[in-house]
Amino acid sequence: MATPHDHDAAELGLDEKTALLSGRDMWSSKPAERAGIPSLVLSDGPHGVRLQRADADHLELHDSHPATCFPPAVALASSWDAELIGRVGEALGRESRALGVDVLLGPGVNIKRSPLCGRNFEYFSEDPLLSGVLGTAHVAGVQSQGVGASVKHFAANNQETDRMRVSADVDERTLREIYFPAFERIVTEARPATVMCAYNKINGIYAAQNRWLLTRVLREQWGFEGLVVSDWGAVGDRVAALLAGTDLEMPGTRRDTDARVAAAVRAGELDEAVVDTAVARLRALAGRVRAQADPVTVDFDSHHRLAREVAADSLVLLRNRDRTLPLAPTGRVAVIGEFATALRHQGGGSSHVNATRVDSPLEELRAVLPDAQVDFAQGYRTAGLSDAARLRAEAVAAASRADVAVLVVGLPEADESEGYDREHILLPPEQVELVRAVAGAADRTVVVLINGGVVSLEGWHDDVDAVIEAWLPGQAGGGAIADVLTGRVNPSGRLAETIPYRLSDNPSYLNFPGEQGHVRYGEGVMVGYRYYETADVAVRYPFGHGLSYTSFEQSDFLVTPTGPDTATMSVTVTNSGDRFGKHVVQVYVTAPRRPVSSPARELRGFAKVALAPGESTTVEIALDRRAFAYWDITRDDWTVAAGQYRVQLADNAHDVTATAALVLKGDSVPRPITLDSTAGEWFGHPSVGPALTAAMTSGLTREQSDEVLEGNEGALRLLSSMAMRQFLGFLPKPIPAETLDRLMKTSEA
Amino acid sequence: MATPHDHDAAELGLDEKTALLSGRDMWSSKPAERAGIPSLVLSDGPHGVRLQRADADHLELHDSHPATCFPPAVALASSWDAELIGRVGEALGRESRALGVDVLLGPGVNIKRSPLCGRNFEYFSEDPLLSGVLGTAHVAGVQSQGVGASVKHFAANNQETDRMRVSADVDERTLREIYFPAFERIVTEARPATVMCAYNKINGIYAAQNRWLLTRVLREQWGFEGLVVSDWGAVGDRVAALLAGTDLEMPGTRRDTDARVAAAVRAGELDEAVVDTAVARLRALAGRVRAQADPVTVDFDSHHRLAREVAADSLVLLRNRDRTLPLAPTGRVAVIGEFATALRHQGGGSSHVNATRVDSPLEELRAVLPDAQVDFAQGYRTAGLSDAARLRAEAVAAASRADVAVLVVGLPEADESEGYDREHILLPPEQVELVRAVAGAADRTVVVLINGGVVSLEGWHDDVDAVIEAWLPGQAGGGAIADVLTGRVNPSGRLAETIPYRLSDNPSYLNFPGEQGHVRYGEGVMVGYRYYETADVAVRYPFGHGLSYTSFEQSDFLVTPTGPDTATMSVTVTNSGDRFGKHVVQVYVTAPRRPVSSPARELRGFAKVALAPGESTTVEIALDRRAFAYWDITRDDWTVAAGQYRVQLADNAHDVTATAALVLKGDSVPRPITLDSTAGEWFGHPSVGPALTAAMTSGLTREQSDEVLEGNEGALRLLSSMAMRQFLGFLPKPIPAETLDRLMKTSEA
Repeated sequence: MATPHDHDAAELGLDEKTALLSGRDMWSSKPAERAGIPSLVLSDGPHGVRLQRADADHLELHDSHPATCFPPAVALASSWDAELIGRVGEALGRESRALGVDVLLGPGVNIKRSPLCGRNFEYFSEDPLLSGVLGTAHVAGVQSQGVGASVKHFAANNQETDRMRVSADVDERTLREIYFPAFERIVTEARPATVMCAYNKINGIYAAQNRWLLTRVLREQWGFEGLVVSDWGAVGDRVAALLAGTDLEMPGTRRDTDARVAAAVRAGELDEAVVDTAVARLRALAGRVRAQADPVTVDFDSHHRLAREVAADSLVLLRNRDRTLPLAPTGRVAVIGEFATALRHQGGGSSHVNATRVDSPLEELRAVLPDAQVDFAQGYRTAGLSDAARLRAEAVAAASRADVAVLVVGLPEADESEGYDREHILLPPEQVELVRAVAGAADRTVVVLINGGVVSLEGWHDDVDAVIEAWLPGQAGGGAIADVLTGRVNPSGRLAETIPYRLSDNPSYLNFPGEQGHVRYGEGVMVGYRYYETADVAVRYPFGHGLSYTSFEQSDFLVTPTGPDTATMSVTVTNSGDRFGKHVVQVYVTAPRRPVSSPARELRGFAKVALAPGESTTVEIALDRRAFAYWDITRDDWTVAAGQYRVQLADNAHDVTATAALVLKGDSVPRPITLDSTAGEWFGHPSVGPALTAAMTSGLTREQSDEVLEGNEGALRLLSSMAMRQFLGFLPKPIPAETLDRLMKTSEA
Repeated sequence: MATPHDHDAAELGLDEKTALLSGRDMWSSKPAERAGIPSLVLSDGPHGVRLQRADADHLELHDSHPATCFPPAVALASSWDAELIGRVGEALGRESRALGVDVLLGPGVNIKRSPLCGRNFEYFSEDPLLSGVLGTAHVAGVQSQGVGASVKHFAANNQETDRMRVSADVDERTLREIYFPAFERIVTEARPATVMCAYNKINGIYAAQNRWLLTRVLREQWGFEGLVVSDWGAVGDRVAALLAGTDLEMPGTRRDTDARVAAAVRAGELDEAVVDTAVARLRALAGRVRAQADPVTVDFDSHHRLAREVAADSLVLLRNRDRTLPLAPTGRVAVIGEFATALRHQGGGSSHVNATRVDSPLEELRAVLPDAQVDFAQGYRTAGLSDAARLRAEAVAAASRADVAVLVVGLPEADESEGYDREHILLPPEQVELVRAVAGAADRTVVVLINGGVVSLEGWHDDVDAVIEAWLPGQAGGGAIADVLTGRVNPSGRLAETIPYRLSDNPSYLNFPGEQGHVRYGEGVMVGYRYYETADVAVRYPFGHGLSYTSFEQSDFLVTPTGPDTATMSVTVTNSGDRFGKHVVQVYVTAPRRPVSSPARELRGFAKVALAPGESTTVEIALDRRAFAYWDITRDDWTVAAGQYRVQLADNAHDVTATAALVLKGDSVPRPITLDSTAGEWFGHPSVGPALTAAMTSGLTREQSDEVLEGNEGALRLLSSMAMRQFLGFLPKPIPAETLDRLMKTSEA
């Protein structure tokens, strides 16, 4: 892959060039008009444009230009719908262009290692495939409008606690299989304009200064040709950062780091070519995002409708006893909860959008249920002094008069934000008490959950009839909730993360958020459902779970090899119910016994299909080599082990409905025998083993030979993992060096 | 601590000296008569002397001189009785001297990280304090007879799989708090003659070549002055091993490593002083163990009685419904199980002892129940072809005729040994079926378990009336089982390791035995009960559990400070039952919130007391500084955090019966504020924070000031872990460098 070369950089002096590589202020880069490089505007917002309106010289989260607040990634991901997310990306790109934003900072594709991470609402999933496919659609959508995306935060930025210093201590296989693949897919498939490096260290080295990460992996192995921008304030040592591959330091600082870089070049500590390359990348970025500079306008009403459509398809129907939902068009409904009128629709921090409007679930429900009586009680308050008992009593009274109570409950704003992590996954106790009290009084009870990070459903789940996980549903979430409650939209969301029974069931529980500057990724690849399924830990709702108002049947499940380590899965899906609906086909793979520990199953493909009642369609999903490969640290490469793989069609990560076997020959991995090979490897080798045994017993009587072999067997039981070099000392009879040399040579063949 | 210096080494030539530092053959070192250094005999055997009788030039496990086979460490540890283990050590030392053994290789004090480790029967416990106190008693006992002990395997040798190559990837705090303390205590309190380094790597470096481990920690920090001997065949690079601190390579090899060492000295790659020091240590060892060379004789009958006494006090009564035990002196007993006549009494591998005799549980039971009718049925076979259905039917028939059935079941010999790990913790399925069938037919059913590693009790536990965990009880185990079954000895053993419900509940489950040359200690300090209690995972029987035929009451629990970070716990124990018995006082400590994650509780003291019916005694247990300290990696030292500690008296690791609060001031840890300190540290500092805020708002109007403070608060929420150096760029108004300098200076005061 050719490195971009800057033909015009020579026009600029060293000091001008180094100046270009740090921000002008909080949200823009410096221009070099003489060299035709404009100032570029970079703005926050995976799910909406946050173009800061106030003084751009400092951080001001709540004074930005109005923009559509789409559902944050936690909700988007639950749609499992790449096409839909692509349309959101397009809308985001259009709003960016209208506001003069050149690079929209997102998507965030870090893996949800712990439910506690304060920024989980900005991330897609605990699964790298789902994160990668959806992130690719997001980037493609944004960039289709001539705006650059910034995939973040690369990499292993899975917590807020001590996020600017902590070292994520994580083995390479885990990085390659869990924390990298979403980035890798987006880089290779969607060519993002920029990648944002993370604040934290990886195995002791700051991401911004990690050459292995930013150059070896990102550029050399994945072919990334865009610009690496630092997370805001992530650069400590700017010379080291440039050397590692961080091109642009953001934001502008008051420190004279430009001069320090120039001085390093003059002192011969930094090759000027490194600076030139970074400048060339900045110029290339400017050329790319400013190519289509014609002005655009935004139809905010249309974007609001899109936000509602997306939110509705992101809601997950977790439970629906006796078809409690959808609500009947008539009758009396008690809507309960502060969030029903003041919907918490997005999370806190740099992603906070100044929404163009925010729908109220209560009002939207009244609008779509014109023939029902919809009452309201506040039920609880999330802030300020609260008379919980009185609010609860009012709610119970309203519930007891109604045919059905709809509780809209969830996490207060202060519970989750960028900047800090949660310490538990519980709803506020007064809300739990409220739900129980209402469920005791109402004929039927529906709970709608508003939360960015997963919450425990324990203490009330079994008391209620239906549960909708609405996440943080964006500015049109109120309408989307009304749509799903009433069946105007048939829910089709699926969990993109496990809902456990208890926080302590989570595999990172004892290693989150780490201590004394280090967080040990002790669970390795066993993140999320990979752990729960492998260690057989029961969960409240598994990854991939989600109900519908219609029913689907899957038939003719077939897995067909398409190459030595690829296959195609096909299945026919039929809407066997009585209303239109969408279904997610989920394909998991279980590996055979191999040199590394394997999760019980891993998501390797999925597709969402829409079907009218009675309609059928055949879904084909390609399983590429990576669906069967693991990262082999001894080979420093992806490797397919030989053996029988099980390809599984599943309703979710726990419930498998059909399995097909697929036998793969695997990669041939030659391992010649040397004196450093173990005794077990010598005696277990198909040709060397028997020859060695023969050499040990040649010239002996049967009795002597038996004795030697018996002694060797005993020694091997204890010492099979000893290097042959040392094991030789334990043999009763020396083996001539020539014999060993001859045997080693034969093993190479 | 002075390094031993060899005054006579100069007499020997370089080649003679290097030759001295590797073995002569499999079990002895080379002599240097001219320099007065004899050949020393080193023999296997933590729980019995295995002096190989056959050709000493190779490994032959089953042809050694007869010796007393005491219970292996798994049983000894369950006694929780240091005095008893000291007496075993003395007996071992005496047998060693009688056989001409200079160094008896043991005890093994590796921590039981996983129940699967094939060598767990040779190790004491999952807890470092228990392992260390018992190991200290063992070493003191052996060495009281003029024989050297060899504490092994140093360190982090917690599995057999790939044990000669695997790297134990484990953080330093975990090494210091879990895997080192037993070694540390023994070294500092019992001055063992030798320490044996392990086969495996620690964080990538072979233990034998790990200078940090063998010199920095073992010698410099703990003051070890003895000899480090390699595990047999553990030395790959002998020059590196000598440099690291491995003095003696064992066994003798056919490779010319002596000459290689000499050549390294001549080439200037190795300082001859390193060789001289190792020779001096060998000479010092010879002087120490050969000082009392007068011959001794062994009374094997007396040692057999000791073995019986120890075994009886090591058995753990896990369950005793409706006082099923002790057995009545009369009536009909059906004894069932191959192990009742052919007791599996020890484990396989280098520790295998040629026992002087082996008691049969059946015969011993008949001997102590002369007035009962004791029938026998084999029940199962552990090897060879078996007609399981017929054996089971016979057993059921015998059980149905008896008043009580006593099943002696357990793991077959092939299931556990040095050299390989188990893959599950289940009893053989035909034994489970047997237990269930017998329990269904018998009036009352007692199960006696024979196993070196923990086994699952699931599938039958609730069906039986009493369960005795007898472990591998040594050659007199048959008599000990009879003693406990009949009440001749009142059981007093306590579990030295947790019995989980399922293997997958174990914290190392997904990280054992590792892959591709690495095993990640992902659970950190959360080993054994530390994990179960902290993550609130239910277990079948907790660490420390064990029942008695009498009852004990504990009263007047009192914790008294004895210094700034030490205390004494005292409690009065009363035998409130009707027979003599022994009780184990267990003291655990729970730390306050501190910079590292803390186990729910940790064993910090214990004492075993013997009491006649109605008798009382007051037990005092000192809690030293280490009872409250954690290893702080930022200070590279033990550190006591300030706060309220809870000192707990407990029946076991789960059941706390009394708690006392202890407030400690903790170590004062000055952390001056610098520009690398985080913004949170700056603003949170008691003096710097307010001064900084004042500086930021000086000269501003109230309104301006409020705006600055509000913006700062917002920035801090997101960026509190950012280094101040970078955070300054996010402030709306620059702060003069002089102000910052002044503030930093004040923080040092």
